[in-house]
Amino acid sequence: MTIRGRFIALEGGEGSGKSTQTRLLAHALAERGIDVDTTREPGGTPGAEAVRALLLEPPGAGWGPEAEALLFAAARADHVAQRIRPALAAGRWVICDRFVDSSRAYQGGAGGVGDDAVRALHAIGSGGLRPDLTILITVDPAEAAARIQRRDEGAADAIGGRDAAYHAAVAFAFARMAVDDPRGFAVIDGNGPAEDVLARVLAEVDRRLCH
Amino acid sequence: MTIRGRFIALEGGEGSGKSTQTRLLAHALAERGIDVDTTREPGGTPGAEAVRALLLEPPGAGWGPEAEALLFAAARADHVAQRIRPALAAGRWVICDRFVDSSRAYQGGAGGVGDDAVRALHAIGSGGLRPDLTILITVDPAEAAARIQRRDEGAADAIGGRDAAYHAAVAFAFARMAVDDPRGFAVIDGNGPAEDVLARVLAEVDRRLCH
Repeated sequence: MTIRGRFIALEGGEGSGKSTQTRLLAHALAERGIDVDTTREPGGTPGAEAVRALLLEPPGAGWGPEAEALLFAAARADHVAQRIRPALAAGRWVICDRFVDSSRAYQGGAGGVGDDAVRALHAIGSGGLRPDLTILITVDPAEAAARIQRRDEGAADAIGGRDAAYHAAVAFAFARMAVDDPRGFAVIDGNGPAEDVLARVLAEVDRRLCH
Repeated sequence: MTIRGRFIALEGGEGSGKSTQTRLLAHALAERGIDVDTTREPGGTPGAEAVRALLLEPPGAGWGPEAEALLFAAARADHVAQRIRPALAAGRWVICDRFVDSSRAYQGGAGGVGDDAVRALHAIGSGGLRPDLTILITVDPAEAAARIQRRDEGAADAIGGRDAAYHAAVAFAFARMAVDDPRGFAVIDGNGPAEDVLARVLAEVDRRLCH
């Protein structure tokens, strides 16, 4: 009998270091002999990557908040059905750069669709699947802005390029979710060198999942 | 003050003649001096047409029923927000080849997502907008099959190409909706020449909307 794998999502605002930590965490777990599937949202399957392209480069006048929330949920439904659930069932660990809580923070909180609506879409689309652990990485706004500046050299997509008030609402929504669900969330200080942040991430993973 | 326009959806299975009747009805109403916007689903806006392309030519292994239902709802949300509501508010009539009841019949009924889920997606995505009148066109299965054969010359997309049991479930779901909502639906015999069918459609439109 195969034991179901563990599902870890990394969340946070733009420039929080999620993508770097996703990669470093997957590498550290693989070095321990754990079979790891590293993925991201929106995306992770051919269908979901096609939806991602529509989200980041909208045709026409741009998506309204409702259409955007539905597209994220559609991409996630494909990702969950065709990649995440099969990997977990096969005993693999799945490390995902963003998951449903990004939709709750961005479309549900900052975008105005509402948390209940985003959760309803997730229930219909993906059976309400929750990560075993969500790692929320927080950084000082000035540090995040400096990282985004270095990475994008001024370019930004349709979501990352939104204004400071939008990103502040995202940060607030993430913080609230972590407060409401302390067992499901580990809040990690993402300031400083990536290897120091990784040490903090690994300590939480060990404490919460490796027993 | 502008009077809100009327919203008419044409529904039915493959080969029922919906698209032909949509065009003929729009032409007949325009000849009376009514300002008509003729459109279709999935599609009708640049964003929704891009989603349509993903639905009819799925990347990867094909959409599961949940992802498919979410993509239809996303396309519809864009279409309603960016085309249908503005047209109605400007006093135009909107004649639409398929609307939410196609999602209820195809994804909700035949696809197994369930009617409640499809209606919840429509409530979240499009405020639950209903047509003023839905014209359900029914034809004998043999007649529909012959029309599809002539039109497609054997080619079929990811949805039209599904098997007979799927299409029978679609027909059953449409019939049930019409029975449950006799004020909202006009059921039209779609057998025979297109001009005869149009006469029957116009009689229902006159009786129900033009007073």
